[in-house]
Amino acid sequence: MTNYQKTAKHGDIAQLVGLSHKNFILRLQEGQELQTHRGIVSHDELIGKPWGSKVFSHLGNPFFLLKPSLGDLISATRRTTQILYPKDIGFILVTLGIGPGQHIVEAGTGSGAMTTALAHAVGPDGHITTYEMREEMLNLAKKNLTNLGLQDRVTFKHADIKDGFDERDVYALFMDVPNPEDYLNHVREVLSPGGFFGCIIPTTNQLMNLIPALRQGNFAFIEICETFLRYYKPVSERLRPTDRMIAHTGYLVFARSIISAEDIELFEKK
Amino acid sequence: MTNYQKTAKHGDIAQLVGLSHKNFILRLQEGQELQTHRGIVSHDELIGKPWGSKVFSHLGNPFFLLKPSLGDLISATRRTTQILYPKDIGFILVTLGIGPGQHIVEAGTGSGAMTTALAHAVGPDGHITTYEMREEMLNLAKKNLTNLGLQDRVTFKHADIKDGFDERDVYALFMDVPNPEDYLNHVREVLSPGGFFGCIIPTTNQLMNLIPALRQGNFAFIEICETFLRYYKPVSERLRPTDRMIAHTGYLVFARSIISAEDIELFEKK
Amino acid sequence: MTNYQKTAKHGDIAQLVGLSHKNFILRLQEGQELQTHRGIVSHDELIGKPWGSKVFSHLGNPFFLLKPSLGDLISATRRTTQILYPKDIGFILVTLGIGPGQHIVEAGTGSGAMTTALAHAVGPDGHITTYEMREEMLNLAKKNLTNLGLQDRVTFKHADIKDGFDERDVYALFMDVPNPEDYLNHVREVLSPGGFFGCIIPTTNQLMNLIPALRQGNFAFIEICETFLRYYKPVSERLRPTDRMIAHTGYLVFARSIISAEDIELFEKK
Amino acid sequence: MTNYQKTAKHGDIAQLVGLSHKNFILRLQEGQELQTHRGIVSHDELIGKPWGSKVFSHLGNPFFLLKPSLGDLISATRRTTQILYPKDIGFILVTLGIGPGQHIVEAGTGSGAMTTALAHAVGPDGHITTYEMREEMLNLAKKNLTNLGLQDRVTFKHADIKDGFDERDVYALFMDVPNPEDYLNHVREVLSPGGFFGCIIPTTNQLMNLIPALRQGNFAFIEICETFLRYYKPVSERLRPTDRMIAHTGYLVFARSIISAEDIELFEKK
Repeated sequence: MTNYQKTAKHGDIAQLVGLSHKNFILRLQEGQELQTHRGIVSHDELIGKPWGSKVFSHLGNPFFLLKPSLGDLISATRRTTQILYPKDIGFILVTLGIGPGQHIVEAGTGSGAMTTALAHAVGPDGHITTYEMREEMLNLAKKNLTNLGLQDRVTFKHADIKDGFDERDVYALFMDVPNPEDYLNHVREVLSPGGFFGCIIPTTNQLMNLIPALRQGNFAFIEICETFLRYYKPVSERLRPTDRMIAHTGYLVFARSIISAEDIELFEKK
Repeated sequence: MTNYQKTAKHGDIAQLVGLSHKNFILRLQEGQELQTHRGIVSHDELIGKPWGSKVFSHLGNPFFLLKPSLGDLISATRRTTQILYPKDIGFILVTLGIGPGQHIVEAGTGSGAMTTALAHAVGPDGHITTYEMREEMLNLAKKNLTNLGLQDRVTFKHADIKDGFDERDVYALFMDVPNPEDYLNHVREVLSPGGFFGCIIPTTNQLMNLIPALRQGNFAFIEICETFLRYYKPVSERLRPTDRMIAHTGYLVFARSIISAEDIELFEKK
Repeated sequence: MTNYQKTAKHGDIAQLVGLSHKNFILRLQEGQELQTHRGIVSHDELIGKPWGSKVFSHLGNPFFLLKPSLGDLISATRRTTQILYPKDIGFILVTLGIGPGQHIVEAGTGSGAMTTALAHAVGPDGHITTYEMREEMLNLAKKNLTNLGLQDRVTFKHADIKDGFDERDVYALFMDVPNPEDYLNHVREVLSPGGFFGCIIPTTNQLMNLIPALRQGNFAFIEICETFLRYYKPVSERLRPTDRMIAHTGYLVFARSIISAEDIELFEKK
Repeated sequence: MTNYQKTAKHGDIAQLVGLSHKNFILRLQEGQELQTHRGIVSHDELIGKPWGSKVFSHLGNPFFLLKPSLGDLISATRRTTQILYPKDIGFILVTLGIGPGQHIVEAGTGSGAMTTALAHAVGPDGHITTYEMREEMLNLAKKNLTNLGLQDRVTFKHADIKDGFDERDVYALFMDVPNPEDYLNHVREVLSPGGFFGCIIPTTNQLMNLIPALRQGNFAFIEICETFLRYYKPVSERLRPTDRMIAHTGYLVFARSIISAEDIELFEKK
């Protein structure tokens, strides 16, 4: 068990939060500088400071020095496409039961937001293998994960999953591709019976394609849901929700690979 | 990295899912039996079976043999009070950034549902210290965690947190008590600056007490939210949400301990 | 303009609310009695009492005497099928702009809950024509509307709408049938260009059938939405939402009949 | 009963919908012109055209000529403050049972959005009396209602409701002011026992002030709720909700004035 370190060290991932919540995620390295619109912050000034301190740029503008949470890291993912949101990622991790030491396969790396969450959750003793057919996306994800020091926990594969997966006996597979129904036979090979399958898809049309394919492919205990997150303004004298919220990210689908799904509807929730 | 084991072994935590999703969580032990309304299932018949198999009770009633997910374990927690739901737990874990190897303090063990989730997430190299002043609750939680084989990752403390916490330099503290505002000075001692604080409270009155106490106690970046989860019936020919849903579990509150919260509203999200 | 009458009169529609919100809708008639599990209440005892009074059954059990709201009337509709909920009805009335003096056509009378709301909204100078092909449903609706004294504002037609509607130049048409897409050519005949079309359908499959049919049928400004209603417990010391809520009733679809829908997507909301 | 007129006439309220749903509400008057960024549209060209027609500005830009719905009128209300949304207005009208011929009192006219909805719902045989202490708001509302031809159904009172209301025996009173709890004794004078009270307030603090005041003031059957509206993109090949939605407008509170609220909690919903 590692204790929380009170001060920022060379090599740590740090978050600087400036005025109006303008924030930066950076890996502290001696001799380096962070350029911001509010002035330059030298990494050397941050190294050795207690976490939670207020620091200043060369122009005198203030920043808070914090350890980023996983949610901060995900939100800061450099991206070219839509990424998964913490509200969905948290529910996916719990529903699939992702935890330390597991081997997880991901299909559809994208910018690497979910890859980051998975790599964080399986820890140094676990591993993520992630597939992406668009090379420039895979490179972006690799860079994002490397910036966070998580690259050793991830194998990046530039391949089309219609040719199948190389892994076997994997705890869980998560998929973020437009047509998951086309790859379910390959998913079964990866998971072995009993394994956990999860995916996110944005439209109801995709749900309609996926559900019968899951049933025909001997997947069971299908669960489909969507999550919502509503924030409140942290003002106790006028306590009320914020004015607007995200109305849709995607539908989450979960299922278990089983040996035979005959009569499975008798076993499912009503 | 441990591979997923294809077959159930002595000592594994297993889930048996029967007709109408009636399900049981059990620890497989040679020579033991599970008594159900649909007949007896011998553990010996389960040990050695592939996960995902269909098995039968002595009365011929069918069950699926599965590895439970974290969500299944939480839902199966034997309880005497309201427990946290997976929809909230997932978002809490991601927002606090809980992961392998960390030391986390929990105040308000209850039946141990959140303790289970935390112990799962920090893994064998992390640790949870959990405080509960009601002895019978603490014993129930201890029993629940022991059934899941997670007891070695948790220190159970029968104590009133108004006397403070023994731990220092902890990564994060999660609180599920009715009056978190009364203990914030103790929370600061545990967390050190920069640390992550989270709690769940069911009423808006509690929010109104907590918010100013957080501000006065040098906590910053306060976030308040609620999560919703809506399920769909997995029927592709008549795709629609289920009829009813949970409307409220609790308000989630997150904040960071900082050195001084002066002018902090200038740094917060609008 | 009619003033609110302070006391209950023969012929009025009244609501009696007993313990635990057990409530009854009745039409006050001299000499009649209401039988309840908590005793008999004589109409003669109610007639002449101020609205808002507490009254008693012959067994001494208390009831409040109230004028029912439209929401109360709808909820009390005797039914054999799912009825529309006030949360949907209110939004439909506003979106279609239903008001006094209008002629509205309804297809799919069901138990008459929406018919009641429409008849209430158009008032004595308006009219509702409602179509239903299941005779027993139409009779139930007729009885429900007659109990509320609204029967003169409604023409009940026992007919299959695949044979078309008899009405022309109608302000708006509302449809609650499983396959609205099959009748859009008939809807156009009823509405004349510019008219308001609304319907409710429970599944996304039905939405997928309806949307292209609306576009091909020269309907425009299509809006699809769902409404949610969350109640709070009215307890100021522990203010919080109720535990559960309705998660789904149906998808509401609105559109306008226009002369030609060519290039219509250029005019629609993004 | 008035039939729907097929063509636009002098004096009608019309809506012109241009590209990207840019839209205008206007009262058709011979000889007048509408100035838009996409060119001038002469009223004379609109008068006599069938509703649902496509018309063109002098620059050749297209518009659809439509009758506006109540929702369109409300959304187009010229405003200086937050207005009520159709999602809330619809539910309020149904819950209070607003209908033709009633006399309704409104406190807090604002820009007149709710006044418009009430005046529409009570029709030419009903009446609205609305109170506003800010003279410039009252003038704006008066102008908005006059533009819609609804001014004869409304009495605008420039007065502070702490001095009480002049009306008696009114069917319902709706209030949109920051501190409704301060005026409940005056509300009771207006309503007579049994009358319907409704209000909207944005914060939970206001709820906490209002609930005990209602109980002490002999109001009963208190209901508190919030409404949500989620739109879908009307695209059948990729059917999904829109990305963002309104998260909060206000809490709706409804209650009935009764003679004595002693033991009233025994009669309320659990």
